[in-house]
Amino acid sequence: MDYGSRFSIPATNATRSVIREILKLTQRPEVISFAGGLPAPDTFPVELLDDITSKVLSERGRTALQYGTTEGDVRLRSQIKQWVASDGIDAPVEQILVTSGSQQGLDLVSRVLLDPGDMVVVELPSYLGGLQSFRSYQAEMVGVEQDHDGMRMDRLADQLGALRGQSIQPKFIYVVPDFQNPSGTTMDLGRRKRLLELAAEFDTLIVEDTPYRQLRFAGEDQPTLFSLDTEGRVVNLSTFSKLFCPGFRLAWAIAPPAIIEKMVMCKQSSDLCTPAFTQAIMAEYMIQGRLAPQVHAIKELYRRKSRTMLRAMERHMPKDVEWTKPEGGLFLWVILPEGMDSLVMLEKYAIPRDVAYVIGQAFHFDGSGPNTLRLTFSFPTVDQIEEGIKRLAVAIRDYRADL
Amino acid sequence: MDYGSRFSIPATNATRSVIREILKLTQRPEVISFAGGLPAPDTFPVELLDDITSKVLSERGRTALQYGTTEGDVRLRSQIKQWVASDGIDAPVEQILVTSGSQQGLDLVSRVLLDPGDMVVVELPSYLGGLQSFRSYQAEMVGVEQDHDGMRMDRLADQLGALRGQSIQPKFIYVVPDFQNPSGTTMDLGRRKRLLELAAEFDTLIVEDTPYRQLRFAGEDQPTLFSLDTEGRVVNLSTFSKLFCPGFRLAWAIAPPAIIEKMVMCKQSSDLCTPAFTQAIMAEYMIQGRLAPQVHAIKELYRRKSRTMLRAMERHMPKDVEWTKPEGGLFLWVILPEGMDSLVMLEKYAIPRDVAYVIGQAFHFDGSGPNTLRLTFSFPTVDQIEEGIKRLAVAIRDYRADL
Repeated sequence: MDYGSRFSIPATNATRSVIREILKLTQRPEVISFAGGLPAPDTFPVELLDDITSKVLSERGRTALQYGTTEGDVRLRSQIKQWVASDGIDAPVEQILVTSGSQQGLDLVSRVLLDPGDMVVVELPSYLGGLQSFRSYQAEMVGVEQDHDGMRMDRLADQLGALRGQSIQPKFIYVVPDFQNPSGTTMDLGRRKRLLELAAEFDTLIVEDTPYRQLRFAGEDQPTLFSLDTEGRVVNLSTFSKLFCPGFRLAWAIAPPAIIEKMVMCKQSSDLCTPAFTQAIMAEYMIQGRLAPQVHAIKELYRRKSRTMLRAMERHMPKDVEWTKPEGGLFLWVILPEGMDSLVMLEKYAIPRDVAYVIGQAFHFDGSGPNTLRLTFSFPTVDQIEEGIKRLAVAIRDYRADL
Repeated sequence: MDYGSRFSIPATNATRSVIREILKLTQRPEVISFAGGLPAPDTFPVELLDDITSKVLSERGRTALQYGTTEGDVRLRSQIKQWVASDGIDAPVEQILVTSGSQQGLDLVSRVLLDPGDMVVVELPSYLGGLQSFRSYQAEMVGVEQDHDGMRMDRLADQLGALRGQSIQPKFIYVVPDFQNPSGTTMDLGRRKRLLELAAEFDTLIVEDTPYRQLRFAGEDQPTLFSLDTEGRVVNLSTFSKLFCPGFRLAWAIAPPAIIEKMVMCKQSSDLCTPAFTQAIMAEYMIQGRLAPQVHAIKELYRRKSRTMLRAMERHMPKDVEWTKPEGGLFLWVILPEGMDSLVMLEKYAIPRDVAYVIGQAFHFDGSGPNTLRLTFSFPTVDQIEEGIKRLAVAIRDYRADL
């Protein structure tokens, strides 16, 4: 049978995630991988979860194992409401939707807002999962460059102006304002305010993705775009994957009521509801006050790991290699000298020297950024970070010698 | 802010699920609900799950709480492979994709195969979640009537011929061959073979949804369409929701490799992966051989409940009311005399008498079937079934007296 002619346009255009394919290359135990954006598994609260699961099953097993509402477990939503309130977000539970991972949040936002050909403004570089979602709904994209403080507002104003000149109104601007994936950069307050002004001036929405936001280990908190917004222009996405564990696939979206209402309808046809079982466990975990100390411990660990990586970079990297200094999150972004290609380097120099990363091109919707790459410091051990950066520096030097 | 103009076409067209809205009406404890398709919570293996979760956390906590592959936990897929093999389905793990509920299976099949305007052939009546998915991808539909043995093949041949006359090739035929939702009917072997012949003659695919298949409590097993197919025309969807519990949202799709490959890509942008935690628990549950006795116990319970419902129907219903005699599953379908409207009856006669069901119109993509309704016998207790059917008969008689 020939299936090719039967596929939809999105399926025909779909490709496997570059990151997931790279992860397969790095499964040899001798490879030190800075590739996947994986949290450190030593932080997973394994024993505590055993107790909490027992409690949930004995006290509310029948509901925890039954279908739940599409909006999500009301006990969990009420805990999320309190959790985000302590971060300055004031939203009633009716505006909070539990999603099956933040990726589903991106999928639902895309499904609710995007028809084929609609325009989305993204960061250069941007989170790969976001780009995949927007592509899957056949959106068009334009990119706005970042500097060390995230998306450049002068360039955004230019892009929005250029689009207006073509009578194109973008559906939304997609940003990761805190410890961006992949760049590790954070937008300061001035940029956040300017971004909201520009969204108002050009009458568009903002999708604010904040998976790493609570993992700040240096510098000062900046308010979320959602909390600064007075016009209902912001959809905020967040997740427990980096604060608790990814294996529960629990995340949430906060949005104006009209948007949440449509997201709920679209979630009904996507997966009916997020598992009641994991939601009940997560709710109990939060009710017991376990999440805050857990997040504190993760931050301390990532602070140490990021410092190790930064010091190793300073010690080992050639002078003309640049990198970001993240104040939180999981990632550090590396810019190699012009003319170097991080994909060639990965295949011919890094993997053979047992070190891996994600090529920066994967994060550029337009395929730019050949001389960039992303390093994750959350997953490898401190010793692996030290050794892996050494290997990476050797790979860079050897590649350059062959150029 | 006006959001209306910003929504995508699917979001603009989306409506809340009729069933989920009805469920809200039936939350008063005095209402006996035959509405939701909920499994009986007494069958949930609460205590066993406590032990199994402890074992999984202590033996493999770090992987069970981490991200997993999009295809699904390989231990679980290997258990599913063995499970379906005992039902005559021969498929390698590479053709098995774990999904976040069967609804996600429907969503992914739709995403992979349907562009706006594409044609899908559905049963009249058909599973509501399927219709929602197809609508969400802006598919067109034609319906084929059922009789007491499921979809009528003469009518299907007519429909396919009529479509060919308009140069329309449907993307697939969607069927629930075993104990259909909502009708409770089962296709016999002859119809199954004929369905495959027609799919070949008109060169289309079949999506075979089998969530209730293993819950046969009377009559003889019929082979799946997937196992009868020799041309790679069938996508089989199934789920643990009715065999184990819905609160895990674990299901699977089996399809030709080219289709599975595209479903995996689309799942990456939908939710990255199904929770590793619930998959690891389910795999352990199956490895311990717990699923078969669990399914046996569920079948015995549903056999008893369906018999109670059928006897109560015989005892209490007016002579000109008809209903199906299911050999398995969760549902029984009721046809009221022409001229009666099950929605009017629900609102004015049934709910006030503290009994609820789902109106049949919700299952007809074209809004037909006003005189039909669906009853679930899995969720209410035996006593509730007896009492609820009495109330329903009173509602029917009172409604008729007022006509």
